[in-house]
Amino acid sequence: MPRQGVQVSAGELAERFGLLLRGDSARLISGVGTLATAAAGELSFLANPKYRSQLAATRAGLVVVRERDADGYAGDVLIAPDPYVAFARIAALFEPATVQAAGIHPSAVVHPDAHVDPGAAIGPHATIGAGSRIEAGAVVGPGCMVGEDCVVGTDSVLVARVTLVCRVTLGRRVRVHPGAVLGADGFGLALARDEGEPHWIKVPQLGGVRVGDDCEIGANTTIDRGALEDTVLEHDVRLDNQIQIAHNVHVGAHTAMAGCVAVAGSTRIGRYCMIGGAAGIAGHLEICDRVVVTAMTLVTHSIREPGEYSSGTPLMDSRSWRRNAVRFKQLDALARRVGPPPKDTE
Amino acid sequence: MPRQGVQVSAGELAERFGLLLRGDSARLISGVGTLATAAAGELSFLANPKYRSQLAATRAGLVVVRERDADGYAGDVLIAPDPYVAFARIAALFEPATVQAAGIHPSAVVHPDAHVDPGAAIGPHATIGAGSRIEAGAVVGPGCMVGEDCVVGTDSVLVARVTLVCRVTLGRRVRVHPGAVLGADGFGLALARDEGEPHWIKVPQLGGVRVGDDCEIGANTTIDRGALEDTVLEHDVRLDNQIQIAHNVHVGAHTAMAGCVAVAGSTRIGRYCMIGGAAGIAGHLEICDRVVVTAMTLVTHSIREPGEYSSGTPLMDSRSWRRNAVRFKQLDALARRVGPPPKDTE
Amino acid sequence: MPRQGVQVSAGELAERFGLLLRGDSARLISGVGTLATAAAGELSFLANPKYRSQLAATRAGLVVVRERDADGYAGDVLIAPDPYVAFARIAALFEPATVQAAGIHPSAVVHPDAHVDPGAAIGPHATIGAGSRIEAGAVVGPGCMVGEDCVVGTDSVLVARVTLVCRVTLGRRVRVHPGAVLGADGFGLALARDEGEPHWIKVPQLGGVRVGDDCEIGANTTIDRGALEDTVLEHDVRLDNQIQIAHNVHVGAHTAMAGCVAVAGSTRIGRYCMIGGAAGIAGHLEICDRVVVTAMTLVTHSIREPGEYSSGTPLMDSRSWRRNAVRFKQLDALARRVGPPPKDTE
Repeated sequence: MPRQGVQVSAGELAERFGLLLRGDSARLISGVGTLATAAAGELSFLANPKYRSQLAATRAGLVVVRERDADGYAGDVLIAPDPYVAFARIAALFEPATVQAAGIHPSAVVHPDAHVDPGAAIGPHATIGAGSRIEAGAVVGPGCMVGEDCVVGTDSVLVARVTLVCRVTLGRRVRVHPGAVLGADGFGLALARDEGEPHWIKVPQLGGVRVGDDCEIGANTTIDRGALEDTVLEHDVRLDNQIQIAHNVHVGAHTAMAGCVAVAGSTRIGRYCMIGGAAGIAGHLEICDRVVVTAMTLVTHSIREPGEYSSGTPLMDSRSWRRNAVRFKQLDALARRVGPPPKDTE
Repeated sequence: MPRQGVQVSAGELAERFGLLLRGDSARLISGVGTLATAAAGELSFLANPKYRSQLAATRAGLVVVRERDADGYAGDVLIAPDPYVAFARIAALFEPATVQAAGIHPSAVVHPDAHVDPGAAIGPHATIGAGSRIEAGAVVGPGCMVGEDCVVGTDSVLVARVTLVCRVTLGRRVRVHPGAVLGADGFGLALARDEGEPHWIKVPQLGGVRVGDDCEIGANTTIDRGALEDTVLEHDVRLDNQIQIAHNVHVGAHTAMAGCVAVAGSTRIGRYCMIGGAAGIAGHLEICDRVVVTAMTLVTHSIREPGEYSSGTPLMDSRSWRRNAVRFKQLDALARRVGPPPKDTE
Repeated sequence: MPRQGVQVSAGELAERFGLLLRGDSARLISGVGTLATAAAGELSFLANPKYRSQLAATRAGLVVVRERDADGYAGDVLIAPDPYVAFARIAALFEPATVQAAGIHPSAVVHPDAHVDPGAAIGPHATIGAGSRIEAGAVVGPGCMVGEDCVVGTDSVLVARVTLVCRVTLGRRVRVHPGAVLGADGFGLALARDEGEPHWIKVPQLGGVRVGDDCEIGANTTIDRGALEDTVLEHDVRLDNQIQIAHNVHVGAHTAMAGCVAVAGSTRIGRYCMIGGAAGIAGHLEICDRVVVTAMTLVTHSIREPGEYSSGTPLMDSRSWRRNAVRFKQLDALARRVGPPPKDTE
């Protein structure tokens, strides 16, 4: 579904994105597709060598490739050092644009003590609380709830049905997807034993949430506000859907997390980390820069060395799994029967 | 809580659902319950042999049973080859019906370029975007957000606070529960190293989501739209709550997933699969038809054979667990000390 | 961010909370902070012995401590048997108060057959369905959807964008965070094999959800309604974000669950249990009182003894993990090679 009517010549693409064109510079491109599905008027790309065999057969009119992949291919190409990055930038031209006119929809409810920049767009059924500020170019989509003392920075977008509970500050160009909840109470409890049966006392959550420029926050992701200090995402942090970030977590710049990751309270994660889907990170840990955690791994201690970390067991048919799993319950006894390693071998 | 005033005779139930009645055909049934709690005017059922002992003691006026279970029981029975299926059909008679009158609630905001069938119901505070179509008999409940270029098919129901971001097409009789988000941006990122410090570039997500007839999508479940092609659920796919389906996933007909499952991008799952709660399925895999995955299993490679698959370790008291778990870290060394298997034994 | 203008003297705090003051009773306290960050006009606390070294260096004007920690410290202290509980109670004084004036916002849609107490507050864009009752002091925040036959008890708060689908009863002082969905259909399916290709039949979910006094339910948490009976949370149950409670689960009083826990259908959990983050509990189990489950553990059988339980494997660098994990697949064969334990040793 290309943006209605967008057509760009191959020559213009080469110039605009600083790429080398080998082929017809007048060829018009009106959309993008995979090597397998792109049509003659469309652009495709080859980044993963696994798909090299599809290059010969593609009907795409123009393909972004590395120089070395261009050699054996007769069709028109744009040559890029990183074809995926180049493709991502070009594809944005063909993205259907949702125009959000600036202004406040008549059904929105804006507190008199809130400030909405005339260049911001507030959608239907949105609410903006006291002391909050919506900057120029920002979009608060339909059904969003911005509570008290929040900031939605310049050109940031709350797509729809996003909640910023209170004391949430978003930088510039932040994108928050539907159903995300930022700034809800952190989960702080103290067990009172001095009145009747022991029961939970709620610990007030007096901090906020600070999100840096260019962050993206996925659908139904939750980021609680801090207890005494703030929960912090530095700039360019990328969170997929259904991630849970507990109070007082600090996430370093450029770190990306796949869907369903859970990070417990007060943990500090470094820059350029990549956290695999549904991984869990316990509370009060320090994870250094450039750590990769594989999917569904549980991180139970701090990590001081960059590198890749895992836990869990491999996939098996359930019959084999059960046979092995029962032995896990006796693993210590088994190791004792085998005895300690001979000296100097480990 | 039976539907107010619904009363059906045992004879009518037998006729209507094609079951054999043994007992008083004039007996009036006005509700349903478990064997342990149903009253004399209520219907119950016995499907799981584990509960056979409860049959003798039940006060239910009528019980749906298999033929072999009817033999030892003196009370009134409806005999069915599959009592659970028969019970499910009968129980629907007693479900409280929420009447949703057709028409558009005055607080709803419908784009002039959207098409709402006169037989559809649009609830309070709903929004319908440009190019979207709501078919006859469909219900868009309170607070739902339907973005641009979506279709809600005939007799489909968005219960409340559902978001269809854009390019989402639902077939007929689809049911989507509150908080679900369909059609949010897939999580596509490319790391740009050519300008300043390496940073993420968003890869435009130009595809949509297609959901077949009779699918059900649980509360707070998220299904992202595809990058270049669509994310697809074939017909009769049943998703529980808080499931994450990444971009370009394809789920075959009649597959069911329990709560909190996560499926990573571009994975293709077959028909009649059953995915246990909180299981994870990595990206770019192929899972064939009739695969069962047990709860919290991580699927890391394609599965070509129907059957049941697992990963993980068994539950233990934490002291025993720690003793065994530490040995897991030395398992390779242990196996080396034991040495390879004698020939022909494995 | 202390509540604007709140200032309390140390003497007043001591008296009000029944604590022993050692220091200047006229000292004014206007906020709270950690030992590391609190200023001279602020209160801090020392509960975890790990932070004892920070006590000497703190600039906090007043610190809540245990008696034994007060001895070596020259600054002003409030002495409490449980400093964390005392601090939690005091900190509540400094929490910014969001005033929710009683009354129904003009944009809210209240069914004529609903009952809203004049002392309740119904926020913008909320909807209240037929047969529902909102008690005195209750708050239904912006964008909340209360369906049919629900009760929001006295002084309970639905913060914003909460959905109570139908037949949900909340006790007094219950707090539900944004995006939570209570009372959605339980995931009940029966596979019909008697008409065309086998397909799923929905089993009607005729029960409700009952939530006791003083419960807290986190952001984007889901609690399905029961099939025939109700899903039940007893009083003072504390659920963090993104938890999934399936139909007919019963959770005992004072049990707390960390984020992303999933509990499958009909399981019964005792009182004073603590369930770690992202743990899974299979269906139809019984967990006794005072059970602790560590993070990401899968509970697959009933637990009859109080204590702590775990599953999973420890965190390793991925290279070591892979070497050990592959051995897990051969663990049974390895154990056979080692042979059974000598008699009487296990």
